[in-house]
Amino acid sequence: MKFTTCSTPVRYAETDQMKFVHHSNYLLYFEKARLDWLSSLGVSYSKMEQEGIFMPVVRANLVYKFPLFFGDCFTVEVILVKNPKATLEFDYYLYNQNGKLICHGNTVLAFLSAKTNRPMRCPEIIVRLFDFDKD
Amino acid sequence: MKFTTCSTPVRYAETDQMKFVHHSNYLLYFEKARLDWLSSLGVSYSKMEQEGIFMPVVRANLVYKFPLFFGDCFTVEVILVKNPKATLEFDYYLYNQNGKLICHGNTVLAFLSAKTNRPMRCPEIIVRLFDFDKD
Amino acid sequence: MKFTTCSTPVRYAETDQMKFVHHSNYLLYFEKARLDWLSSLGVSYSKMEQEGIFMPVVRANLVYKFPLFFGDCFTVEVILVKNPKATLEFDYYLYNQNGKLICHGNTVLAFLSAKTNRPMRCPEIIVRLFDFDKD
Amino acid sequence: MKFTTCSTPVRYAETDQMKFVHHSNYLLYFEKARLDWLSSLGVSYSKMEQEGIFMPVVRANLVYKFPLFFGDCFTVEVILVKNPKATLEFDYYLYNQNGKLICHGNTVLAFLSAKTNRPMRCPEIIVRLFDFDKD
Repeated sequence: MKFTTCSTPVRYAETDQMKFVHHSNYLLYFEKARLDWLSSLGVSYSKMEQEGIFMPVVRANLVYKFPLFFGDCFTVEVILVKNPKATLEFDYYLYNQNGKLICHGNTVLAFLSAKTNRPMRCPEIIVRLFDFDKD
Repeated sequence: MKFTTCSTPVRYAETDQMKFVHHSNYLLYFEKARLDWLSSLGVSYSKMEQEGIFMPVVRANLVYKFPLFFGDCFTVEVILVKNPKATLEFDYYLYNQNGKLICHGNTVLAFLSAKTNRPMRCPEIIVRLFDFDKD
Repeated sequence: MKFTTCSTPVRYAETDQMKFVHHSNYLLYFEKARLDWLSSLGVSYSKMEQEGIFMPVVRANLVYKFPLFFGDCFTVEVILVKNPKATLEFDYYLYNQNGKLICHGNTVLAFLSAKTNRPMRCPEIIVRLFDFDKD
Repeated sequence: MKFTTCSTPVRYAETDQMKFVHHSNYLLYFEKARLDWLSSLGVSYSKMEQEGIFMPVVRANLVYKFPLFFGDCFTVEVILVKNPKATLEFDYYLYNQNGKLICHGNTVLAFLSAKTNRPMRCPEIIVRLFDFDKD
């Protein structure tokens, strides 16, 4: 199961004085990509939060292959790694406008109950969305 | 009534490819300065929020005189402009390590009740802290 | 002369614990809007920088009317205030998906020579683009 | 070889609507910690850049154990993993004011020649600073 974002231009403020995108921004790009995916599947993450379910990132991994410059556009490919259980794991591949792989990474997200402030199992709505075996 | 922050080094990620601090960061520096002031007066803004009082910025004004570079340190002087009423107004003067005025600005903050989501009068605790006429 | 951006969704990381967009992000939204405008007119700001012309922000002004939430989308209307001279001045009006005015502001940009590190007059290419009187 | 930063308060803007620090900020905290270390050893990273040596991050790894809140302070322990060669590898342990481990991670940095825009060996100045075997 995978999803690819629209092409997104780099923001000027995302560069630093090395003259390319600061490495922390890729976590924002990955976050946007996975929330866009949820949204495209009809799941509003804001609604999930209002219902008391948070999805904090508990692990992240990034490999930076080439710089991304202001003036560049990028797409992010998001892949669900395995069936959602207590956590949700995604791989990301970020390409520039020439199809060059700029950065890839992986994040693991947990589910947190806003009421108890404790980990919880993956909500049914997410399980059903991302069930590998459903077809 | 005024307050001056400790000397703070510029973070690398705050620069952009113009090779100096991106102009949006000054709002973060000003915010930190006024929260440090409250904190130094014994007011925990986190506690205020827990008690249902938010202080959103409703106006901001910035004049950028000179660039600030990675490697530089800065201090912010915060001045309360007038007695707190429905809003709280601060002036800011940001200097680099050589005492050069880099940026000055002004922000107006409102008080928002988290319960009603509506503006409220300045809480008594803030009025008493910042009462010009008390001495 | 004016320009309106595409609809842009709020990024999750742009919120703070007040549960709406942190006020510093509007400077990033305004910046993106004016660079998109230049780009739509065929002017690459990256190229201008490579040719040694920087456009730092020298003044900024923001009025925050209503909060913007994660889940919201916004557009920015950018208006050139007067003929470009030593500075370039823009007004901004940011609306949410319901057409509600969320924030408006103004920035003044200067032109800086990368070689001399000193202010310079507005480059001809910008003068011609934004000449009010040309029609 | 290790270094521990001063205690640093969380900035308000670093939180998101989950009401704790957004996960991307830890990369900024780690960056600041390693640059503080270099600085404490008498190495100015700004000077290195002026001499044409960049140190981009090429890999990053983060494990988030507990949230960090506005009002919290943190310290970062930085450890050099092995003798610097073509890359420089650091481990990081970030603790809150109660000594609780909040996040740990690892980054690998490369050396990039600004002139050739290509990887280069670790500069002598860094080799000597971080030589495990020197004592």
